[in-house]
Amino acid sequence: MDFIKIAKQAKEASFKIAGISTETKNRAVLMMANAIEGRVREILAANHKDLTEAEKLMAAGKITKAAFSRLKFDEDKIHDMVSGIRNVAGLDDPINQRLLVRQLDTDLTLFKISCPIGVMGIIFEARPDVIAQIAALAVKSSNTVILKGGTEAKHTNKTILNIINSTLDKLEGFPKNVLQQVFSRDDVTEMLKCSRYIDLIIPRGSNSLVKFIKENTRIPVLGHSDGICHIFVDKNADLTMAKEIVIDSKTQYPSACNSVETLLIHKDFPYKEELLDSLSSEGIELINNPESWSFEYSDKILAYKTVKSLDEAINHINTYGSGHTDCIVTNDAPNAEEFMDRVDSAGVYTNVSTRFADGYRYGFGAEVGISTNKTHARGPVGLEGLTIYKYKLVGAGQVVKDYVGGVKQFRHQDLALD
Amino acid sequence: MDFIKIAKQAKEASFKIAGISTETKNRAVLMMANAIEGRVREILAANHKDLTEAEKLMAAGKITKAAFSRLKFDEDKIHDMVSGIRNVAGLDDPINQRLLVRQLDTDLTLFKISCPIGVMGIIFEARPDVIAQIAALAVKSSNTVILKGGTEAKHTNKTILNIINSTLDKLEGFPKNVLQQVFSRDDVTEMLKCSRYIDLIIPRGSNSLVKFIKENTRIPVLGHSDGICHIFVDKNADLTMAKEIVIDSKTQYPSACNSVETLLIHKDFPYKEELLDSLSSEGIELINNPESWSFEYSDKILAYKTVKSLDEAINHINTYGSGHTDCIVTNDAPNAEEFMDRVDSAGVYTNVSTRFADGYRYGFGAEVGISTNKTHARGPVGLEGLTIYKYKLVGAGQVVKDYVGGVKQFRHQDLALD
Repeated sequence: MDFIKIAKQAKEASFKIAGISTETKNRAVLMMANAIEGRVREILAANHKDLTEAEKLMAAGKITKAAFSRLKFDEDKIHDMVSGIRNVAGLDDPINQRLLVRQLDTDLTLFKISCPIGVMGIIFEARPDVIAQIAALAVKSSNTVILKGGTEAKHTNKTILNIINSTLDKLEGFPKNVLQQVFSRDDVTEMLKCSRYIDLIIPRGSNSLVKFIKENTRIPVLGHSDGICHIFVDKNADLTMAKEIVIDSKTQYPSACNSVETLLIHKDFPYKEELLDSLSSEGIELINNPESWSFEYSDKILAYKTVKSLDEAINHINTYGSGHTDCIVTNDAPNAEEFMDRVDSAGVYTNVSTRFADGYRYGFGAEVGISTNKTHARGPVGLEGLTIYKYKLVGAGQVVKDYVGGVKQFRHQDLALD
Repeated sequence: MDFIKIAKQAKEASFKIAGISTETKNRAVLMMANAIEGRVREILAANHKDLTEAEKLMAAGKITKAAFSRLKFDEDKIHDMVSGIRNVAGLDDPINQRLLVRQLDTDLTLFKISCPIGVMGIIFEARPDVIAQIAALAVKSSNTVILKGGTEAKHTNKTILNIINSTLDKLEGFPKNVLQQVFSRDDVTEMLKCSRYIDLIIPRGSNSLVKFIKENTRIPVLGHSDGICHIFVDKNADLTMAKEIVIDSKTQYPSACNSVETLLIHKDFPYKEELLDSLSSEGIELINNPESWSFEYSDKILAYKTVKSLDEAINHINTYGSGHTDCIVTNDAPNAEEFMDRVDSAGVYTNVSTRFADGYRYGFGAEVGISTNKTHARGPVGLEGLTIYKYKLVGAGQVVKDYVGGVKQFRHQDLALD
């Protein structure tokens, strides 16, 4: 089927799913979880096919061992995925929330109501647990999606989405074509051009994938391409705290986007050598080279630099950082405030590991991704990032002429939201 | 000066203005108003130069009479502009608002705080009152701007911005380069490419200008290119109400984006001929032709169509509309609800003129423009649309390892916002 037809179906379905009840959506999400749980064998068989093909690619040096292991499913991973889906059913419905109720005049009331964005194009790499998670988030937020997964996981992704869609087919009142999947690179090219039907693109994968997508579409993209996070150790920082925070931020999961990449140390911090030694003894390779300041190693490698002042640290971060997550370690409260106010990043932290930048840790329940955008949604994005709002205005025949002419005046009185 | 240097200055200034107090911002806005008020003669002299040049262009048929009259300033218009600026000083500061305070654990508190977007590129056509209004909104929201006005108004725009900047220079603590102006088409080309320094583009002007900009940049654009608004007259609508609403929506200001362009009438509405006759007698030209369904006349011309059902009306609007503002006239409450839920537009109205789609009428005080985007901001956009947020996380040395390892658990308890 050609892409435009799929996209048009997604748009039509988006009008239908916008109107279904919270109960129906939660039932749909729970049915998805049950169906996956009941058909684990099928999923593992499909995954086995992908793994067999991937093994050959790995032998030919075409995919890495890490990519191969991310591809591998087992019963435990499937059960984690299922419990993640069930968790989505328990979250508050982000749709149809009243954000403002304002009486403009007698019998003229304005409501600002949250609603779905519409059609999302989701492009993700190998990990096969993403597809079910995105499906659950899309249904819960009343959006429709067109999914394009990594080629290596195609059998697994196809099987999981078939299982989900065949169970949703049985749910009365649930529209068709809410969750569709495409498989080719040409489909991606079409998707990025299809601003007529697609409202938002969400890439999940490597920095290079995200960068490519951001540079090749005019549709809004939600995501981050770089995670160049900093820790600034102020002159009066506690040595033990600085050590623990830097080690956790670098080693707890080095390839995560919220891992620290650059350590800035105040020139008057008296324990610089001791701090650096402790990092080396944790197996962290230290680099002192301006070329590394805009580079995301995603490994146990850490750039470091001595700075003369808080001001220099802030300017360095605003110049070389990626606006993801940056931390100050200090005992000086005004310095902490100044750092958090002036650093222009999605997350600005005081005395805490950069690894906390995560939707689950922030208490959002589920995470769509982490955004370094300056519009719409920034930082870890939960279900709220998949919503927008509309204004409903309910009147009794009012016309603007009367207000312009001075016959009537606006009242503009806000009412309680419930 | 080359554009990149201007843009870099704007970015640097954006870091500074992000930190200034509400008091300083309000003082800056009031100083702008006073300075303009005190130098009306200079502005009128500059405007006279523009008008003299525009007169020649009009004689040569290069600009319309309407464009010429939009360009013309007088003392009354300047006083209206000044009172609009003073009004901005009185609005709530949209920056540094707490949007969420959540205790993740003991001594680990997450704050979601509103903050400015950064650098805005504003491209606007002839009307010379826009520049002061945008300057006031930018300062109030702690953003910096690069302005590109219409060439016809260049003397007026230059004079107004010089007056504003020379008064702001005297305000202690107010950063330089918050408000900059460029004049050439090449600057616009550079601006649309400059995603490194510019965070948001706001076009204000004709549909063709906005369309051109949306198609030629990857920077987020806030605005609308089309205003194809609909009124659906349901079968049991009140005839008098339908007449008054359609007449106001079409004739109160025909070239406004929130004017109605298409009238849909239910086939069982018994007063169709009477309604159409009353519109004709108001000087509205009626057109019944599928080619007009996606066309914005911006004139006293109205397309109309008979539809078989509410469903057909909704589908027509979602197919041919521009997602701006659409209204149902009905006495049937469930139909009104269904219409407002299913029509996918920024404004969905019941029994009220489409001309109410306006920031001032919604009580936002000032308006940046009206957005038909599905992300960030939709509908009339006030100061809030010029903000985003950051997450501040304040801890006491916490590391993620302890939470992943089960040593500690998250509490996720929301606290009061003040």
